[in-house]
Amino acid sequence: MVAKSDLKLIKSLHQKKYRIRHGLFLAEGVKLVEELLASRLEPFRVYSTDAGEGDSLLPISEGELGKVSTLTQPNKMLGVFRIPQPEAPRFTGWTLALDALRDPGNLGTVIRLCDWFGIGDLLCSPDTVDCYNPKVLQATMGSIARVRIHYLPLAATLEGCGLPVFGASMEGADVRRVTLPASGVLVMGSESHGLSSELRGLLSETLAIPAYGKAESLNVATAAAVLLHEIRRSDPGAIQR
Amino acid sequence: MVAKSDLKLIKSLHQKKYRIRHGLFLAEGVKLVEELLASRLEPFRVYSTDAGEGDSLLPISEGELGKVSTLTQPNKMLGVFRIPQPEAPRFTGWTLALDALRDPGNLGTVIRLCDWFGIGDLLCSPDTVDCYNPKVLQATMGSIARVRIHYLPLAATLEGCGLPVFGASMEGADVRRVTLPASGVLVMGSESHGLSSELRGLLSETLAIPAYGKAESLNVATAAAVLLHEIRRSDPGAIQR
Repeated sequence: MVAKSDLKLIKSLHQKKYRIRHGLFLAEGVKLVEELLASRLEPFRVYSTDAGEGDSLLPISEGELGKVSTLTQPNKMLGVFRIPQPEAPRFTGWTLALDALRDPGNLGTVIRLCDWFGIGDLLCSPDTVDCYNPKVLQATMGSIARVRIHYLPLAATLEGCGLPVFGASMEGADVRRVTLPASGVLVMGSESHGLSSELRGLLSETLAIPAYGKAESLNVATAAAVLLHEIRRSDPGAIQR
Repeated sequence: MVAKSDLKLIKSLHQKKYRIRHGLFLAEGVKLVEELLASRLEPFRVYSTDAGEGDSLLPISEGELGKVSTLTQPNKMLGVFRIPQPEAPRFTGWTLALDALRDPGNLGTVIRLCDWFGIGDLLCSPDTVDCYNPKVLQATMGSIARVRIHYLPLAATLEGCGLPVFGASMEGADVRRVTLPASGVLVMGSESHGLSSELRGLLSETLAIPAYGKAESLNVATAAAVLLHEIRRSDPGAIQR
């Protein structure tokens, strides 16, 4: 049985203000929790409905799990992990920056893309959805453990980063015809408002994905996928897995 | 005031079985409804909280809208449209096929991608999530009106289509190094199981997106984005918007 105060702590982590207050976040499901346990992230407490005696996992009943879970179908394991200490972005190779992304699924998918395309640092404007939101974590499929995520004011950070800054915009140059450098920053705007004018002022160039049909725009995660693919495509020195 | 029986009809369309029974589906929000009204789709009844006298829109109160809406924040308009009659896929240029896609957001995003990349026909296996599911519709951002979607058994359909069939698979050939024809079919597998062995047997070739990091896989919509971009990239005859 899990103590009432611990159940209360877990449940409080559904909300950003308690995640910040406690410096903890919640991960759910066998696959995600096991992936985080194998990573640089530090576990605080890990519960499993299969925990046995002498196990490092704490036992939790199906009923308790159902009460504190954010999932409609809770899946055996629940881990509470420490939110890593902030560190400075490295600005080696390519960095992705997100301005005011609001949708948890989109952010999670973008984190997974960074992990696929070998982007080590992801910058998020302070008004971007919290990367420790349970829906974001689910969508990252464990990639949250391998991408360093930084919440900071984008304009000030990018101004001083010493690398060319590219923006994604439908009015930009066809990405296939732009010679991209081996290192730089790609900035993606929010789902509804695109890039802010402050950020636009900092851009070396804007990049567009050529359209062949009539859709007004692309979802931000699918646009990021194509642009990151093009960034790797144009760099023969990038180390493929 | 909307008649009780009409409210009941609208609400029933949240469920696939009633959409099929009535041959109707539900679209919500000003932007989506207006986009569908301007399309080939046939409206059955369209409601608006702003409807005035002599208007072709039917009046609905905020309270009524809240009761029948699938959205947490209903937005003024609600349209009931007729589900178009099935027609045969055309197999001109490139066609995308989805095998057992389950997530409404993913399907909606893929429909939007088809519209962006000028893919006119989308084939879905019968166990793919229903494209008239309200969550799918929201994610299409109106592209549902411009892509012909066909639910049919994929293997039998692709066997007789007369075009080369390509599959997306992490074990495939680097898509950048494959010479793609001007017409063909691209098949994407489900989120959890990839391509079925029956479909694998039909493939001319499998295509992979090169990885530079450690993510195990890509989300199906982001993978579709990169592959459709590559398909257009390799065809100098494709007509760009």
